[in-house]
Amino acid sequence: MRLILTALIATTALAGAAQADVLRDKALEYFAPLPSTVPAVKGNRITPEKIELGKALFFDPRLSASGVFSCYSCHNLTTGGDDNMETSVGHGWQKGPRNSPTVLNAVLNEAQFWDGRAEDLKAQAKGPVQAGVEMANTPEQVERTLRSMPQYVEWFSGAFPDEAEPTNFDNMAMAIEAFEATLITPAPFDAFLNGDDEALTAEQRAGLELFIDKGCSTCHSGVNVGGHGYYPFGLIEKPGADILPEGDKGRFAVTATVDDEYVFRAAPLRNVGVTAPYFHSGKVWDLKTAVTIMAESQLGETMTDEEVGHVVAFLDSLTGTMPTVTTPVLPPETASTPRPTAEVKVD
Amino acid sequence: MRLILTALIATTALAGAAQADVLRDKALEYFAPLPSTVPAVKGNRITPEKIELGKALFFDPRLSASGVFSCYSCHNLTTGGDDNMETSVGHGWQKGPRNSPTVLNAVLNEAQFWDGRAEDLKAQAKGPVQAGVEMANTPEQVERTLRSMPQYVEWFSGAFPDEAEPTNFDNMAMAIEAFEATLITPAPFDAFLNGDDEALTAEQRAGLELFIDKGCSTCHSGVNVGGHGYYPFGLIEKPGADILPEGDKGRFAVTATVDDEYVFRAAPLRNVGVTAPYFHSGKVWDLKTAVTIMAESQLGETMTDEEVGHVVAFLDSLTGTMPTVTTPVLPPETASTPRPTAEVKVD
Repeated sequence: MRLILTALIATTALAGAAQADVLRDKALEYFAPLPSTVPAVKGNRITPEKIELGKALFFDPRLSASGVFSCYSCHNLTTGGDDNMETSVGHGWQKGPRNSPTVLNAVLNEAQFWDGRAEDLKAQAKGPVQAGVEMANTPEQVERTLRSMPQYVEWFSGAFPDEAEPTNFDNMAMAIEAFEATLITPAPFDAFLNGDDEALTAEQRAGLELFIDKGCSTCHSGVNVGGHGYYPFGLIEKPGADILPEGDKGRFAVTATVDDEYVFRAAPLRNVGVTAPYFHSGKVWDLKTAVTIMAESQLGETMTDEEVGHVVAFLDSLTGTMPTVTTPVLPPETASTPRPTAEVKVD
Repeated sequence: MRLILTALIATTALAGAAQADVLRDKALEYFAPLPSTVPAVKGNRITPEKIELGKALFFDPRLSASGVFSCYSCHNLTTGGDDNMETSVGHGWQKGPRNSPTVLNAVLNEAQFWDGRAEDLKAQAKGPVQAGVEMANTPEQVERTLRSMPQYVEWFSGAFPDEAEPTNFDNMAMAIEAFEATLITPAPFDAFLNGDDEALTAEQRAGLELFIDKGCSTCHSGVNVGGHGYYPFGLIEKPGADILPEGDKGRFAVTATVDDEYVFRAAPLRNVGVTAPYFHSGKVWDLKTAVTIMAESQLGETMTDEEVGHVVAFLDSLTGTMPTVTTPVLPPETASTPRPTAEVKVD
C-alpha cells in the first residue's frame, strides 16, 4: 500500500512538473522575466555616480517650488512606488488629473505616462517638476537651486565628467532616470518563469492560465505585463463616467487623432496588488472589481467570482521584492538657494 | 637647525595639545558627547521590533487624513531631520504656526515642541497626527487604518507582545519614539569631547571658546547643546515682530503664566548648520544673522563679524553623521482601510 501511494505521489508530482513546464512555455510566449542587472537605457549610460546623484534628486523636495514635494512624494518607495490616492495632491493642494503610476520597473515600459506622451523616464522626469498642479517649478529655478549647493555641483561633475556645465535640468532628468532604472522588483512570477515550479501556488498557476486564455495577455504582456501598446478603454464596452471620466480623452490629447479618443497605454501590472487605486482615474480600489471591469470592457467576458479570484491570485505573484534603498543625505542650502514658496501662481 | 625646528614644532604641538585639553575640560563642564548606544527612554523599553515598527509608521503617509503627509514629510531624514521651510505646509495647504524642529537627536531633549508642551517624543508624536493644519487625522481613524492591515497588526503584536490589543494610537506613538531614539548623529564636536584634538579646526576651537565665554552655553548646553530650559526670546532686547511675531506668546500658551510670555525652550543646536531657517518663526535663513540676533537679544552683546564667523564655524562642528536608514516596505491597504481624503473640514 505504501509503495502504491509513493508511486502515485511521484507520478502526480511528475505530472505537476510536466504541467508547470507546459504552462511556463506558454507563458514565455507572452512574458519575460526581469533582467538580473540594471537595464541599459537608450542614450543614458548608467553609472554608479549617476545613480547616486539621481537618488539624491529623486528624494529632494527642493525641486518643487514649495519645497513640499519630491519625486518620492507621489512615487513613494515605501508603498509600491506610487501614492495611495485617486489622483495625487500637488502644489496649492491641487488635485492632479490622473492616478500616479508606480515608478517600480517603469524603466522597462515602452513609454511613460498613462497616455505614453513621454518617450522615456528622462523625458518623463521633467514633466511633474514643471506641472503647475504638481511641483510648479521651472527649469531655470531648478538650475539655480542645484547650482547654489556646491555638493550638487560636485556630484553633477562626477556623474557627467565630460561636460562643461553639467549642473543643468537635462542632466537632472538623466540622473533621475539612472536611479529609477535600479528600481527593479523580481517577483514570484519571475522565479516561475526562470524555472521554479513551486514559485506559484496552484491557484496562481490557474490564474496565469486564465490570464492568457481569456486574452488579458494580448495587451498586458512583455516583461512588465503591460506598459506598451495603446488601446481604447472600453474596447468592447465603454465603462461609465464614474470610472472613465468623459473629460479625459487619453492619448487623443497627444496625437489629436479621433481614433485615439479614450485610448491609454496598457497598464504595466507588476506590483498591481500593492498599488491601488486602479485605472488612470484611480476610481477603483478593489483589484477584483478592476479585473471584472477589464474583462467586461476590454474582452466582453463575464468572469465568475472564482475565475476573478484566480486571476487576482496570479496578479499577486507580480508583487516583487523592493531593492534596498537608503535615504540619501542631501546638500544643505546656501545663502543663494532660492527660498521655497507655497504661493500659487494664477496664469 | 633641523633639531631646533623639530624641537620647536614638538613644543608647539605639545602646547596645542595642552590648549586643546584645557578647552576640552572647559567644554565638558557645559556639554556632553552623544552616547554610543541608543538612549534609554523613560517608560518605553527600546527593542528592535519597536524600532522597525516605528520606522514603518514614521514613513507612512496613511497616518494623515489626506494620505499626503507622514512624520517624514516635515522631519525629512534627507535634509537634517526637518523640512526647509519657514513653517511647514500641511493639510489643505495650511501653514503651520512654527518652524519644524529637527527629529535628529530629539530624544535627548528635555521636552518637545518649541514651547516644551510635550514631555517626550511619545507625547509629541500624537500632536501632528491630530493637528488640523498638519495631518488632520483622529486617533480612531489611525487605529482603523492600522488594524485594517494584517501586517501592521502582526508588527504591533511583535513589538508589544504582552498586550491584548496592541494595535492602538498610544503604541503607535511609543513605536515612533523608539525609531526616533535611533536617530543620533555623532559629530566632530563629539570626537573633540571624546579626546580627538584634531576633530575641530583652530577656528572651530576659537568659536567654541567664544560660545562659552560670551555666555551662549548658559542656555545652549548639555548633550544637545540646548533642548532644555526655558528662556524669554529677547531676554535683554526684544527682536522686532518680523522675527518674533507678537501673536505667538510661546510657553505662555502652556502655563498661562505672564512670566512665560515669549518664552521658548532653548533650541538644541546639533545639526543647526543644515537646518535653516531659524527660530520658532523660521524667519531667518542665515546662521550668521541668527547668531548675531541671539547675541544681541539674549546677551546684549554686539559680536564682531570675525567672532560670529568663529561661532558659526563651531556650530558647523555640530553637524553629525546620519545613521543609515533604509526605506521600509509598508503593508498594502486592504478593502477595509479608510480612504484618504483631501477634504478640509471647517469646524
